[in-house]
Amino acid sequence: MKVRDYECDMQGIVNNAVYQNYLEFARHEYLESRGVSFAELTKLGVIIAMVRAEIDYKRSLKAGDEFTVSVMASRPSRIRLQFEQEIRRAASDELMLKAVITTTAVNERNRPYFPAVLENIME
Amino acid sequence: MKVRDYECDMQGIVNNAVYQNYLEFARHEYLESRGVSFAELTKLGVIIAMVRAEIDYKRSLKAGDEFTVSVMASRPSRIRLQFEQEIRRAASDELMLKAVITTTAVNERNRPYFPAVLENIME
Amino acid sequence: MKVRDYECDMQGIVNNAVYQNYLEFARHEYLESRGVSFAELTKLGVIIAMVRAEIDYKRSLKAGDEFTVSVMASRPSRIRLQFEQEIRRAASDELMLKAVITTTAVNERNRPYFPAVLENIME
Amino acid sequence: MKVRDYECDMQGIVNNAVYQNYLEFARHEYLESRGVSFAELTKLGVIIAMVRAEIDYKRSLKAGDEFTVSVMASRPSRIRLQFEQEIRRAASDELMLKAVITTTAVNERNRPYFPAVLENIME
Repeated sequence: MKVRDYECDMQGIVNNAVYQNYLEFARHEYLESRGVSFAELTKLGVIIAMVRAEIDYKRSLKAGDEFTVSVMASRPSRIRLQFEQEIRRAASDELMLKAVITTTAVNERNRPYFPAVLENIME
Repeated sequence: MKVRDYECDMQGIVNNAVYQNYLEFARHEYLESRGVSFAELTKLGVIIAMVRAEIDYKRSLKAGDEFTVSVMASRPSRIRLQFEQEIRRAASDELMLKAVITTTAVNERNRPYFPAVLENIME
Repeated sequence: MKVRDYECDMQGIVNNAVYQNYLEFARHEYLESRGVSFAELTKLGVIIAMVRAEIDYKRSLKAGDEFTVSVMASRPSRIRLQFEQEIRRAASDELMLKAVITTTAVNERNRPYFPAVLENIME
Repeated sequence: MKVRDYECDMQGIVNNAVYQNYLEFARHEYLESRGVSFAELTKLGVIIAMVRAEIDYKRSLKAGDEFTVSVMASRPSRIRLQFEQEIRRAASDELMLKAVITTTAVNERNRPYFPAVLENIME
């Protein structure tokens, strides 16, 4: 991916919240690569709810930087999906950010709900 | 503050990254109430850099919800500013989100830099 | 409303796209003040679709500026809702931006659909 | 480019303001392909200020859609840079949006300022 100028704040670096957008986009791409579309989940009444985000900011991406976002999924408990993610600047492979994102899947009444389609996203 | 519709995703709830915007806005308002403007810091060459964010998502804000964001600042070490923050729905005072945001202040060469103006933001 | 720092770009001024968020928020507040909630419209299967936006940028809002957004609604044809809007800086009442936003209401099959609830938003 | 889920609103379609981000990103890529970096312009004290945006929304992009953004630059007067832009869905080549974006370049005192570097961005 590539930093877009509007994602930078007046310090000329990517705004802190924008990294969460990058992380989310990579997670959704990951799910899609396993046949799970976020839009379809929403239609099925499955809500992937974030439980906790731990984000370590190492260095700042700047306007025009190209970067990669990695995703490693695990299932630490029956009702948790966890994603370990890293953002690295493409040019130097430097680590810019590390995150552990813990989520759960719930139905519209906010009860844990892991339909079969979510079972095989790990590998 | 009040949730704006464009901040909601297709699940009808506030997008996870947007909470970081709310938290940041509240921190900057807090700093300003202590006489420290983020825009002026930028002009002075002081960059408040995020080091770590720990965010616990309890419940989701929805379109139209009104809410408050609290800020408690501390200085856990010489080169750290830490902010404990909570987001509560105004109507019910329910806790929606808790966060611990750890930052540092650096100059343009990325060296720790805490000018006098930053000294008295705690109280 | 007040400009939030994350809405500013590296020029230190509000990013051009963000003004559309301000305009939308004001339109939705306007609709709500007439008893029409955007979230409820979505549930009813009514989609307010933008048809055309004409935006004249006069001056730039900066970090921390407070401002007002006005809304004047009209119905130039049977299937059009039009909103004339202005953004003014609160301190000086200076005109920052003028916009004419033309929308239509459609159902999920993309056909014009103006349920009764939309009839009395003009006054 | 590809629509990111967080860019969609609760109607499941790309939020109106987000298209301006797409258009801006394409313009900046265009300038860069002519050797003009937006970040460097900012450092030189050149601000590309939007004067007017006319945007016709034809159809809505949805989550996961891939699309292209075109840019045609012209110089309608000495102090105007104009960009005609189109967004088309990649799969079908359908026109989703058409825009005419009129800008000017100013210095920090808000006076028209077109340094040599801006002279050869047209063809």
